[in-house]
Amino acid sequence: MPQNIPSVLVVGAGALGLVAAYSLQEHGQCDVTLVVKFDYEKVCQEGYTFKSVQFGNFSGWKPKYIRKSVEDTKHEYDFIIVAVKNLPDGPEPVNDIIRHVVERSPNSAVILFQNGIDIEKPLIEEFPGHVIMSGVSLINCTNIDRVVDQKNKDSIQIGLFENETIKDIATAESKLKQFVELYHIEGMNTVSLDENVRLSRWKKLVYNASINTTTALVQLDVTRSTICGFKQNLCRPIIDEIYAIAKADGYNIPSEMEDEMLNLSNGLYYRPSMCVDVDFGRMIELETIVGNPLRMAKKYGVPAPRLDTIYHLLQMVQYKTMEKAGLIIMDVEKGVPHKTFN
Amino acid sequence: MPQNIPSVLVVGAGALGLVAAYSLQEHGQCDVTLVVKFDYEKVCQEGYTFKSVQFGNFSGWKPKYIRKSVEDTKHEYDFIIVAVKNLPDGPEPVNDIIRHVVERSPNSAVILFQNGIDIEKPLIEEFPGHVIMSGVSLINCTNIDRVVDQKNKDSIQIGLFENETIKDIATAESKLKQFVELYHIEGMNTVSLDENVRLSRWKKLVYNASINTTTALVQLDVTRSTICGFKQNLCRPIIDEIYAIAKADGYNIPSEMEDEMLNLSNGLYYRPSMCVDVDFGRMIELETIVGNPLRMAKKYGVPAPRLDTIYHLLQMVQYKTMEKAGLIIMDVEKGVPHKTFN
Repeated sequence: MPQNIPSVLVVGAGALGLVAAYSLQEHGQCDVTLVVKFDYEKVCQEGYTFKSVQFGNFSGWKPKYIRKSVEDTKHEYDFIIVAVKNLPDGPEPVNDIIRHVVERSPNSAVILFQNGIDIEKPLIEEFPGHVIMSGVSLINCTNIDRVVDQKNKDSIQIGLFENETIKDIATAESKLKQFVELYHIEGMNTVSLDENVRLSRWKKLVYNASINTTTALVQLDVTRSTICGFKQNLCRPIIDEIYAIAKADGYNIPSEMEDEMLNLSNGLYYRPSMCVDVDFGRMIELETIVGNPLRMAKKYGVPAPRLDTIYHLLQMVQYKTMEKAGLIIMDVEKGVPHKTFN
Repeated sequence: MPQNIPSVLVVGAGALGLVAAYSLQEHGQCDVTLVVKFDYEKVCQEGYTFKSVQFGNFSGWKPKYIRKSVEDTKHEYDFIIVAVKNLPDGPEPVNDIIRHVVERSPNSAVILFQNGIDIEKPLIEEFPGHVIMSGVSLINCTNIDRVVDQKNKDSIQIGLFENETIKDIATAESKLKQFVELYHIEGMNTVSLDENVRLSRWKKLVYNASINTTTALVQLDVTRSTICGFKQNLCRPIIDEIYAIAKADGYNIPSEMEDEMLNLSNGLYYRPSMCVDVDFGRMIELETIVGNPLRMAKKYGVPAPRLDTIYHLLQMVQYKTMEKAGLIIMDVEKGVPHKTFN
């Protein structure tokens, strides 16, 4: 690749990864390589269809380079966007997925377009000194069978994770500045510099730990769940626990965030992402959205009985999903489960 | 009917109702009338098949009289056994189901072969002065398509509910004694006089409020749930709350009950009754098993955040079931639900 154009690897071809790939390829003057795990052949032949409030409607779009896996990439990259689900309890934790390309690209920045809290910790431990950024976005977008349906304009906060292993902060900050400029498209999206990444992640957890988890457990859309009184009876008490854990962690989530998040899907028969994952028999981001806050609660001695209940119920859901997907095989005679991965 | 043979009405042809009907008809010298809501025609023609550890294996058994509904009965009865599910939130609360026959049978005793606590309250209010008894049984038995599969011998505790509206206690006690004698079959079942009905019901809630509810929410059998750690992480903390509420209510559940109930289904890929109800899209006994203890917790000021979380999640499950069954119809345009019953 020419030296003067930044190279970006986007790992994960979900809705979020595709909006990022399109934005950077078409507006950011980058060379974009997209890793497409499923549908690789079809994507190579037909590309993607966009029905996008931001980019318009068109078919046949492809990123400059398409690869079937991270192992199939050969170059050094300037930016590595991770837009796959974060499943430390699954067969492919994020550090395993990106290890080769990160080691090959010592000057790259890794940007995590993912939910949850403490998600940088395993990466900082495995890649000390490497720049790791956070992308927290609110986007109402799906990718079903290579059709990207984007109902809201992209709005994303990008910042540096707190990282004691970084010695050269100036370089990290200049990488951050460069990425924000590449990603920003004047008048089309909102890209802001996130000065307090951890607070942003606590804020988003207000939604993800309450509405996402409860609808996933029962597999019911937000309108019907609201009729059942779940905001008052389940979400608010869970959110109280999130506020208390965040506070013990040193972060004051603004009080207005509670109503803002609770009203986000008002009037929509909306099935939140975790609910959809359960619908389709896919693993959920349980550990980063519920497990990590709960581990902090234990560490800080903050009572969180409701979050704890939700967590252990969702662990059972996760087990079911993994057994159905063949990730766990049950020795029925002995009543003993075996993981099919390490 | 001849005056000298007691007449028993069994309302509900589930496993429990059928074991009772068979025991009383064949061994208790009673005239048994069974109310069969579903399968009435087939039962009249073919009767039931028993595969019973207690009674043996045979086909074509019928009770003396079969009725399609309580409204179809005309006689006065000595005993009215209620063996339908207790669903105060459904279209047919127990008091509505049995009102006609209770009013026609002023000297009868009503015996509730049902789970949960405070289940006598609506009946005492509606039928003051009427004798109401409790039957708490542990029986591993199913009735699927008129095949009664009974794996344990019947073991039941029968007693009088506390009831301030009863003036003539001697008569109530003689009814109780008569019923226990009718139901007992020497060497075949265990029928004991329950001196403390409410404590028996608290004891059974240890199982029903923990193992039954959590497996129902996630729809997972007991062996797999145990592998997920649900006994330690979910059941024991919920059981702690049940013990505390019972204590505030004046009842000390013996401590050994916890392990006894938790080990009841060990080694079995067993799906508890509430889990099976959800599997088959049937309403669950949420109010009598979880709602009533929770209302007591509020009344006594006992914290019960885990039971509260489980309750509100199961309310959403109940809503889903009711909408699927046509008991609730959603005006999708307006986002407003309508009950199809009062």
